[in-house]
Amino acid sequence: MADAPPRGFETAEFEARTVKAQRLMTEAGIDTLLFCTEPEVRYFSGFLTPFWQSPTRPWFLVLPREGKPIAVIPAIGADTMARTWVEDIRVWDSPCPEDEGVSLLTDTLREVGASVIGLPMGPESALRMSLTDFERLRATTGAAFVDAGPIVRACRFIKSEAEIAKIAHICAIASNAFDRVPALVSAGMPLAEAFRAFRIELLAQGADEVPYLVGGAGQGGYGDVISPPTDAPLATGDVLMFDTGASWDGYFCDFDRNFAIGQADEAARSAHRTLYAATEAALAIAKPGATCADLHAAMVRAIGEDGGGIGRMGHGLGMQLTELPSLMPGDSTVLAPGMVLTLEPSMTVGPGRMMVAEENIVIREDGSHLLSRRAPEELPVI
Amino acid sequence: MADAPPRGFETAEFEARTVKAQRLMTEAGIDTLLFCTEPEVRYFSGFLTPFWQSPTRPWFLVLPREGKPIAVIPAIGADTMARTWVEDIRVWDSPCPEDEGVSLLTDTLREVGASVIGLPMGPESALRMSLTDFERLRATTGAAFVDAGPIVRACRFIKSEAEIAKIAHICAIASNAFDRVPALVSAGMPLAEAFRAFRIELLAQGADEVPYLVGGAGQGGYGDVISPPTDAPLATGDVLMFDTGASWDGYFCDFDRNFAIGQADEAARSAHRTLYAATEAALAIAKPGATCADLHAAMVRAIGEDGGGIGRMGHGLGMQLTELPSLMPGDSTVLAPGMVLTLEPSMTVGPGRMMVAEENIVIREDGSHLLSRRAPEELPVI
Repeated sequence: MADAPPRGFETAEFEARTVKAQRLMTEAGIDTLLFCTEPEVRYFSGFLTPFWQSPTRPWFLVLPREGKPIAVIPAIGADTMARTWVEDIRVWDSPCPEDEGVSLLTDTLREVGASVIGLPMGPESALRMSLTDFERLRATTGAAFVDAGPIVRACRFIKSEAEIAKIAHICAIASNAFDRVPALVSAGMPLAEAFRAFRIELLAQGADEVPYLVGGAGQGGYGDVISPPTDAPLATGDVLMFDTGASWDGYFCDFDRNFAIGQADEAARSAHRTLYAATEAALAIAKPGATCADLHAAMVRAIGEDGGGIGRMGHGLGMQLTELPSLMPGDSTVLAPGMVLTLEPSMTVGPGRMMVAEENIVIREDGSHLLSRRAPEELPVI
Repeated sequence: MADAPPRGFETAEFEARTVKAQRLMTEAGIDTLLFCTEPEVRYFSGFLTPFWQSPTRPWFLVLPREGKPIAVIPAIGADTMARTWVEDIRVWDSPCPEDEGVSLLTDTLREVGASVIGLPMGPESALRMSLTDFERLRATTGAAFVDAGPIVRACRFIKSEAEIAKIAHICAIASNAFDRVPALVSAGMPLAEAFRAFRIELLAQGADEVPYLVGGAGQGGYGDVISPPTDAPLATGDVLMFDTGASWDGYFCDFDRNFAIGQADEAARSAHRTLYAATEAALAIAKPGATCADLHAAMVRAIGEDGGGIGRMGHGLGMQLTELPSLMPGDSTVLAPGMVLTLEPSMTVGPGRMMVAEENIVIREDGSHLLSRRAPEELPVI
């Protein structure tokens, strides 16, 4: 296994996140931030638990303009929250469908002063409480709710060194697991069995969880890559692709690798080289000051007009498998030191067949640094 | 590995789900159901993919009063959706922050006629689209949105034989993995390493994914069981508990097992027997006609007043780790054939120490049938 950085964060990290958000709140005229989604609650508190998997209970974090965040959560989570830097922890006995924390949350919001409440309401956001309870909260608080998405993104876009170390660690774990693929799979193996072997290898190499594993296999390229694997056996001439979002201490990698089974046709080998070159083109210009759209354009140029590559070609990465910004036309987000991104060029290889490459990078003052171990230029044959 | 039932469902199963929902819609005066959350979209379409892990794209399913559901989804999911029984698949190129499917969804809803739109808005529901886009949709459709939670629950509460077979299969897989725990863990092993070994074993036994694994270890009982495991070594006299929600073909098990490391004190052994008896008490009365509150009361009686067992003691189980109903006071849901439930009695063993037992059952005409392989009455020592 790869050497692991420390788990969790120093309190100073949460203080820095909170102070930055509070400065932006003040500028935006927002009294209080309210979070009900896992990444946001965790980002400002450190609350890490798989218990979110159960839809039964909502969890709230209230961030006033001054001081620490306040947790308003089901009693079952009090011990776990008490291990974080949060001190003010208010609990209710849940499940309680008649009042699933709404009264307690209303009282808390009133106490800290909340005429204008910021809640992520824009792109890529969700509401992890019932709409009925949200409407009730809107009525009981009488507050104006505004979109806090820009504030959260301004904080989360720039990863700290501690966050980068966690992402680098899970990238190293996945790189080690990808190196083992030639020993794990072979012609004749059902695709679903190959998935299972690779998922186990990721854990054996040190991943905490494998929330995301997709891929595909097909002669000279693959089609649909988001369906679960079937039991169809791998065949000579197939290109096999795994794309994994494994996690360590709550941080994700997200990259893929391609392998030819037994032999590779020239079209697949050529496509692999083209995707390698597209990634090189993006790596070369991925520096502070460049935009997400610039990176996308560089990859599209390298692939050429016949590649059909017009969709998103990468995105932010961190506490979630995919985060904003998006590497696509129209996303003018300017790269800055501390941003962690995926580069994900894809191209059409033939009718119903495509290939995708993906790497994970961090932006530094001097340019881009790989977090995933670079894929080879030549399509590996196993 | 355990023998597996077929993956997926016959079209007749989706037809039956749809017809039942449509009958209930008509009774409730609802024109169209709208779903944006993974279990609901999957329940009525069969759309199964880990791609939901990315928050970038919303996915919609529209269920009119007559005919099949209509998918309104990002183009990247078209191939996967085309493998389901859904025929009318409408796509947009996503990401598209300016119009993330809202126009296409509006047009679709108008076309099928939607003055009154049913959307799950009550207990345990969430909104997996941005609030801004939801408000926009409310404006563009001019529709009244009402809670469709009761309709969805009326359908999902009663599992088909095909659904029960999937849950039984993942329960058998987890039972096999639990049987292997004595060979996997021992005194001195860091708890996090024990978690890793057990997670790998679940996959090796045939689980597709392990979205949920929690547990704890401590002298004579455990405290906080929803925090991630630490590297603290297992010690003689510890009670170790794993509680897992592993999944197969999109269906979950959710049960736990307790093990004493090296030796068990009398308090822990006695608590294990008491929890066994509490489960027996619930099993004995878990028949059609009994209520969820009845099962809870039977378990509380078996544990006695000193047990401190007042929280929820079980819940529904299926496409999600936890589903309604809840085994708790006040939940008067009447048990019916086809319901799948967990029985989860817990009790205090000492200051800051507790123990929890859990089994999975299906309700049949003649009473309850275990899906998990029954825990032993005596706390096993390993």
